[in-house]
Amino acid sequence: MITHTTQIRVRYGEVDQMGFLYHSHYVEYFDVARTEFIRSLGVSNREIEADGVMLPVLNVTIDYRIPAHYDDVLTIRTTLREMPGVKIRFYYEVLLPDGQVSTTGSVTLAFMDSRTKRAVRPPKKLLDLVRPYFE
Amino acid sequence: MITHTTQIRVRYGEVDQMGFLYHSHYVEYFDVARTEFIRSLGVSNREIEADGVMLPVLNVTIDYRIPAHYDDVLTIRTTLREMPGVKIRFYYEVLLPDGQVSTTGSVTLAFMDSRTKRAVRPPKKLLDLVRPYFE
Amino acid sequence: MITHTTQIRVRYGEVDQMGFLYHSHYVEYFDVARTEFIRSLGVSNREIEADGVMLPVLNVTIDYRIPAHYDDVLTIRTTLREMPGVKIRFYYEVLLPDGQVSTTGSVTLAFMDSRTKRAVRPPKKLLDLVRPYFE
Amino acid sequence: MITHTTQIRVRYGEVDQMGFLYHSHYVEYFDVARTEFIRSLGVSNREIEADGVMLPVLNVTIDYRIPAHYDDVLTIRTTLREMPGVKIRFYYEVLLPDGQVSTTGSVTLAFMDSRTKRAVRPPKKLLDLVRPYFE
Repeated sequence: MITHTTQIRVRYGEVDQMGFLYHSHYVEYFDVARTEFIRSLGVSNREIEADGVMLPVLNVTIDYRIPAHYDDVLTIRTTLREMPGVKIRFYYEVLLPDGQVSTTGSVTLAFMDSRTKRAVRPPKKLLDLVRPYFE
Repeated sequence: MITHTTQIRVRYGEVDQMGFLYHSHYVEYFDVARTEFIRSLGVSNREIEADGVMLPVLNVTIDYRIPAHYDDVLTIRTTLREMPGVKIRFYYEVLLPDGQVSTTGSVTLAFMDSRTKRAVRPPKKLLDLVRPYFE
Repeated sequence: MITHTTQIRVRYGEVDQMGFLYHSHYVEYFDVARTEFIRSLGVSNREIEADGVMLPVLNVTIDYRIPAHYDDVLTIRTTLREMPGVKIRFYYEVLLPDGQVSTTGSVTLAFMDSRTKRAVRPPKKLLDLVRPYFE
Repeated sequence: MITHTTQIRVRYGEVDQMGFLYHSHYVEYFDVARTEFIRSLGVSNREIEADGVMLPVLNVTIDYRIPAHYDDVLTIRTTLREMPGVKIRFYYEVLLPDGQVSTTGSVTLAFMDSRTKRAVRPPKKLLDLVRPYFE
């Protein structure tokens, strides 16, 4: 298991007229958190894309508990629980400034060859970086 | 069961560098489709909010199958399968211009008193409009 | 001079906690209106891109007068006042449902070869469609 | 004159199919930079709103020079050149990771009483914090 934590401050334009972080933006925050998770391992999404591998999203689930507000600094805890295969699944917890859980969720992505658009195994570099955590 | 269909054209700014409709925007499209669904029943979200009832989102799930592209006119089929109680759940199918399914999903919302922030029953007006479909 | 009119309904996620259409979204609406303007001439942005011409934005100006709200159907009047050269400039007026002007603005774009990333003249097809209006 | 610098990393969902940061997002970045500018003075937008003052945007201008890309860390230089009156104008420069200028722009806002919706003078607290820089 690998857990990584990143922080995002809620922008004015992301809050709706209820005064809540609009619910679709969590999906974007999960993407940002994933980017930082992968960077923390020692490789970047950008490098992975440059190597001809894309990661389209297959599935998203989110449970909303307590709304976040403008200017809140949210803590996003991203966890990888299993070795990635042709798919990789990230689990998320978004924490409010007071530590309460705002949302939980998961995102599943596929590894895809950007030229052939076919499913592929994860890049060896990524697997090598992840493997030690699952032995 | 009630089904309603609406169409949304994919905007340039909603497409990512893979050339695909970025995955978070489906959540926003579901919201637009829900607004049109409710309007087609004979009441508007705006009226419901004006009557002091908010509908925060409790849960979202999405399965992505085939990506949509810039300028595609997507057909969104929104279905209500059960009478709403303190919660209301919408099911979605997003169809590509050629009729293939791009994504499926669901969104569950709560009815909340906008003053007390407590769960409430759905507005009577909405229930009266929906009831005939479930008898 | 060519003027084209399109309509956009304000989405819930586009409204801020003042209850106003968040100011950056007008830039996106201008893009949508431009797409429809060009389509009405008889060519699509998509075709132009497929022919290897990109239209990066060079300049945007917007004056905000009266805010728009959730669910408002806005009318966007897009005007081309001069024949396009290496640049093309669109002028906008966004009207509220009651006909009052919400914002005015302009967007200037360049024609760029998507391979060489150099400025080019507008596609002949577009020029031929536009020329009759300026004679 | 007061200048403040903040950094924003470009998100995946903010990049278009040309591979460029989509042009409307600069407007949102200007808002984020403004929030940090004001916070650096010793007051927050949130406090200003809580005190019953809103800052609707009156005007935006942007000149685009060099596109930014996914995952770029952009430096945003925000400058206040004059003491705020009933209006306040911010000037911006967005720098790419290599120091080149990506865009420049300005945003003008009004101070408005959130109850009466009428123009008001800036909050005394803000004026007191800003004044020393203009003496």
